[in-house]
Order: sequence, then C-alpha cells, then structure tokens
Amino acid sequence: MYTLYSMQRSGNSYKVRLALARLGIPYRLVEVDILKGESRTPEFLAKNPSGQVPLLEVAPNRYLAESNAILWYVAGGSTLAPEDRFARAEALQWMFFEQHSLEPNIGAAYFWLALVKGGRELQRHTLDDWMEKGYGALGVMEMHLAHNRFAIGEHYTVADIALYAYTHLAERCDFDLTRYPATRAWLERVAAEPGHVPIHWQPEPQRAAE
Amino acid sequence: MYTLYSMQRSGNSYKVRLALARLGIPYRLVEVDILKGESRTPEFLAKNPSGQVPLLEVAPNRYLAESNAILWYVAGGSTLAPEDRFARAEALQWMFFEQHSLEPNIGAAYFWLALVKGGRELQRHTLDDWMEKGYGALGVMEMHLAHNRFAIGEHYTVADIALYAYTHLAERCDFDLTRYPATRAWLERVAAEPGHVPIHWQPEPQRAAE
Repeated sequence: MYTLYSMQRSGNSYKVRLALARLGIPYRLVEVDILKGESRTPEFLAKNPSGQVPLLEVAPNRYLAESNAILWYVAGGSTLAPEDRFARAEALQWMFFEQHSLEPNIGAAYFWLALVKGGRELQRHTLDDWMEKGYGALGVMEMHLAHNRFAIGEHYTVADIALYAYTHLAERCDFDLTRYPATRAWLERVAAEPGHVPIHWQPEPQRAAE
Repeated sequence: MYTLYSMQRSGNSYKVRLALARLGIPYRLVEVDILKGESRTPEFLAKNPSGQVPLLEVAPNRYLAESNAILWYVAGGSTLAPEDRFARAEALQWMFFEQHSLEPNIGAAYFWLALVKGGRELQRHTLDDWMEKGYGALGVMEMHLAHNRFAIGEHYTVADIALYAYTHLAERCDFDLTRYPATRAWLERVAAEPGHVPIHWQPEPQRAAE
C-alpha cells in the first residue's frame, strides 16, 4: 500500500489525495506540518532531499516527489493519464504551466494570506507581483476554458487535477474570480466529477497512527 | 516539418533545440526576441496565449508550449523518453523540480545578469533570494548526481536535457559551481553525448526566412 506524506492544507498535497480518491486507491496518510518544520528534519530529508510534500512511498524505501509527477504515476493506465503522444504533451503543457505560472503566485498568496496569515517576510510589492502574475495565469486559463470542457478537451485528466488545486483556493487569498466565468464553470465541473473530495478530506480507515 | 519559435539566448528554448539536434529531426526556426516584445504581439499571442517561447508548431496551426512538455512530445518513442511507469514519473519529478526550483532562480538570475544586464526592476534582495534558492536546488542535484550518472540513472533522458539548460548557464550569472563536483562531472557527461550542440547553435539549412 502507498504511504503518502502530505500536509492537509497544501494544494500540492491535495492533488494527490484527489487523484487517489478518484481512482479508489487505498493509502496510508502521514501528516507532515511544513509550518512546524516537519519536512526539514534529517529523517524526512533522507526520504526527499527537496524537503517538500507531497511525497509518495511507492514501495518500501522507494519515494517519488513532485505532486504532478506523482499524479502521472498513480494515474498511469487509467483514463486520467492520456497515453496518446500529443494528448500527453498537452496535459503536460498545462501541468508545467501550473507549476511555474499558477502555483508560485496563487499558491504563494494562499500560503501567506490564508495559512501563515501575514508574516514579516511578506512585503506589499511581493504580494502585488503574485496577484498580477496570478491574474495573468487565470486569464490564460479563462481563454482556454471558454472553448474546452476540460484542460485538454472533453475529458477530465491529471491536468485538471493539477490546475484545480490552487485555482479553487484563489478566492481564499483575495483573488476575485467574477471576471472568469469559464474558469468558474470548469471549477464546478471538476467538483462534480465522480469521487471528488474536498481539500480537508482524509481517508480515515487507512490513516497512519504516526 | 516542425516550426520552432525560439529565442537563441533562452535556456528553455535551448532545451528543444538540444533534443531536436540529438534526435536528428529537421525543423524550421523562427527567432522571437522576447526582450523586444516579439512574444507579446497579437499575432504571437494568438499562437500561444502565455506569450512565451519556446513554442512548437507540430502541424499547421497546432501548437505546443512549455519547454518540458515539448521535450516529451518530440522525444516520444525514443530512448530519451522513458515509457516505464516509474521511470517516466522519476523523469517528470526532475522536470517539475527544474521548473519550480531551478529555472525561476538560476533562469531569473541569468535573464537579469547576463541578458538584460541589470534593469531598474532588479533589487538586491531579489537577487539574493534567487541565489539562495538556486544554490538550494543545486545542492539537491549534487546529492543525487553523486550516486547517479544521469538524472534517472544510467541513461541520458529528457530530464537531463531539462536540468542541463539552466545549470550549464549558472556560472554565467555568478553561481560558483566549485562546491558541486558531481554536478560539474554530469555537465561534462551531458556535453559529451552524441549530437550535443551549444546554446548558440542553430540549424542553418532549415532556418526560416522570417
């Protein structure tokens, strides 16, 4: 059985829990509170030198990091992971877009405004920069979703899971989505997918004692 | 034949030229100077709403963006793109790591220090942040490459191409690699791969007239 090292409030960790729930794959959950430094202990760094969650133990002492790479692994062989060469590249296109245009801006704003709630390091011009770039990324998604049901067309894939995580958190950190009707309709379509779970969901029966 | 919209000095664009050269795939090259705003024209934005290079036209009016997604597309079916489920996820792990830990820091330092050469927007604390995070990413790579010939083991893949682009530019923007001997040895192994080309290389015979 997989062991998922995850932080309940992290959008990146949520992606993996969302995929595993959709696929009906059981797993053991270990909560790692990065705000308490639990991803920076020698024990955790031995598992993932990047010091980040999510981290999936796919077999004893065999670990996989990076939320979007984990999505491809757990979804491999299912309809969530397209194998056609162009469709796969299109899904990856949106997932790399998510990691450098969406997550560093909406994810950073969410981290500081909704989780840390301020903090000395947060300066106004930094927040303004995240908001501007975050809105830029939402604008690119809006144009695309105005003509597509899901990220790569008609079907829900790992690309939607990746994009959903931080987009659905945007309003919790001061982004105004009223100007993004296609994106809001897509958020509703994703939430209506079978097996959908909210970010605060955890698989109680398999939860680790740790 | 593919058309590649690329900027000669961009590390992300270089990845695609490196893969196409290695694979011996001919293509038409269109130079887009992002410093002159050429990726922000209405004509270019109609091709890629993100306004970024590289962009690959894979068939008439069918475009693919995001350097690392393009790598998976052009390398599909070759040994550069592992199809085993775990190996593919491991390669993706390093490629997502590259896009959020390496490129935004070393790539940003390279852009401002080596291409723009300063600029009003560049503040000391921003540069210090890039250097600190860039060294952090290099540290993670160094630990891995001390025990692995290439990113996912014994063979050169798209993950090496992705990681190489900005790592091999690090010394041009004030990063000191003397403390990273395994990374330096890996840079030499990549440069010794068949079909390797330097960043300033372009495929003259197929070059576009535009």
